[in-house]
Amino acid sequence: MKKVINAPEQVVEEMLQGIALAHPQYVRRVEGFDVIVRANAPVAGKVALVSGGGSGHEPSHGGFVGKGMLDGAVAGAVFTSPTPDQVYEAIKAVDGGKGVLLVIKNYTGDVMNFDMAAEMAEADGIKVAKVIVNDDVAVENSTWTTGRRGIAGTVFVHKIAGAKAETGADLEAVQQVAEKVIANVRSMGMALTPCTVPAAGKPGFTLAENEVEIGLGIHGEPGTHREELRSADETTAHLMEKILADLQLAAGDEVAVLVNGLGATPLMELYVVNRKVHQILGDAGMKIAKTLVGNYMTSLEMAGFSISLLKLDGETKELLFAAADTPAFVQV
Amino acid sequence: MKKVINAPEQVVEEMLQGIALAHPQYVRRVEGFDVIVRANAPVAGKVALVSGGGSGHEPSHGGFVGKGMLDGAVAGAVFTSPTPDQVYEAIKAVDGGKGVLLVIKNYTGDVMNFDMAAEMAEADGIKVAKVIVNDDVAVENSTWTTGRRGIAGTVFVHKIAGAKAETGADLEAVQQVAEKVIANVRSMGMALTPCTVPAAGKPGFTLAENEVEIGLGIHGEPGTHREELRSADETTAHLMEKILADLQLAAGDEVAVLVNGLGATPLMELYVVNRKVHQILGDAGMKIAKTLVGNYMTSLEMAGFSISLLKLDGETKELLFAAADTPAFVQV
Repeated sequence: MKKVINAPEQVVEEMLQGIALAHPQYVRRVEGFDVIVRANAPVAGKVALVSGGGSGHEPSHGGFVGKGMLDGAVAGAVFTSPTPDQVYEAIKAVDGGKGVLLVIKNYTGDVMNFDMAAEMAEADGIKVAKVIVNDDVAVENSTWTTGRRGIAGTVFVHKIAGAKAETGADLEAVQQVAEKVIANVRSMGMALTPCTVPAAGKPGFTLAENEVEIGLGIHGEPGTHREELRSADETTAHLMEKILADLQLAAGDEVAVLVNGLGATPLMELYVVNRKVHQILGDAGMKIAKTLVGNYMTSLEMAGFSISLLKLDGETKELLFAAADTPAFVQV
Repeated sequence: MKKVINAPEQVVEEMLQGIALAHPQYVRRVEGFDVIVRANAPVAGKVALVSGGGSGHEPSHGGFVGKGMLDGAVAGAVFTSPTPDQVYEAIKAVDGGKGVLLVIKNYTGDVMNFDMAAEMAEADGIKVAKVIVNDDVAVENSTWTTGRRGIAGTVFVHKIAGAKAETGADLEAVQQVAEKVIANVRSMGMALTPCTVPAAGKPGFTLAENEVEIGLGIHGEPGTHREELRSADETTAHLMEKILADLQLAAGDEVAVLVNGLGATPLMELYVVNRKVHQILGDAGMKIAKTLVGNYMTSLEMAGFSISLLKLDGETKELLFAAADTPAFVQV
């Protein structure tokens, strides 16, 4: 597997340098740590949001650090949870006195290490709350998860809880709206190809020439089953069926849609998927308030996509439309 | 090659439907044509910009239709020039009475068909001007080009000429600033893998397991040579050397950087490249005013990247930083 890197053991370090050099108007590196924070962190009088996880999911999460979304992002090794001391540094760097909300994708290592970091920060007198995102309806429990996995729906948590924090809301209120998003967002994905962790040097699994995996996780964890590649409409309909069975929307409900590329899927194909998503929701009488199409939470160069649906109410809709200004998501 | 599509002959149609459904706040489809225009087109009292070309380069160009960039984008079949009648419809749909600037990437078919469309529109009394982008320093002449090819540097033309048009400038002034950008932007790319046009069903060329092509075009046209994959820093240094030899920057010059992904290259790797670009420019005493990193002009699922450098002056810098609001590029 060919990669544009220098050495596998330097790739996260060099990526973080590249991010900080590209976006000095938005972010800076916390010296000596694999942590990206807002250029003006800490922001006084505002609850701060910290997320993170293994690297390889870019632009998640460093690309979402900025006004209206995250205050800090912690980058572990590729597909590996960041250590507690790294998360602890992020918390300290962003706390502006109103406390810090940790947005954690549900992977056992992430949950454990963010928990330990929270304890370290609380011992310093920093208020810390946390939410755990588990939007993936594909499977209960998985290779690295107890319960459902957290995948691309996490971006809606960043956006909406981040907007709530900008209003000056307190830590409890920001946590509550994050929990509301988590309760109302569901995702499911599929993959056409595996991806290669740089240090491993070979793909994490294999798929036959015309085979796909349905419900695959963003680190290549097994999904529900493998099958022969079907049409975009058939695959989309299958994923939507699983999502809608779990989310239980009714006609008239208002939703936000995220058609997320896993890294190597052309935007052309994501738009073909989006067309079918809109047809299905339209036929069911649901109203789509907002649609995002693109690479928001990737798995290195994996080909495939996920669909996320978020059921909105008045509060989450308003916060979803609020202004944001980050390297990877800007909204006027 | 696995693709998330329904049928090769429907992919552009379904993509355009997917774009229009995703971004109704920005764009609409011109009924019956493969043309995306601003939702509020035509905008009265403003020069309009139209670009386009073969599909497969998304988000170019439909993703850049919106305030501060393009007014219309014409989508040909995959890697195939749009026909004159399609371009003509785009011109008619966006002309707000101050004329239309065509931003054409230098491919023989595009130049010819946009020219014919311009003549058709002029016969209707619409003022039309055109610029031809030829930023790729890799090769003189190529498979489908007389002279240098137009590649990712085109995005800077959209941004800066689009911002100029928003100021109310006349057609000649918008054309002049577009020409200034073209005179000051240079690009070069490399590819690690080929890509597959849906209707062809197999890759357009092959590369050995550890082989890359330097200077490859965005449709798989041959570049300068093939070589064994080198480190990210070495490859970046080679591309920068070719670009800087042609652009002839001096210490103290101010530039904008675009590290553009061709479709399947992880953002992680693009940031590793960006780090080296910044080191090289910094060592040479140049000042980087703005950096873009991501998939701006792709080649379906090709793995690889290009680097574009734009030498700025006071006018182009101010226009580069002006607000923009489009599906794929938003700037506050």
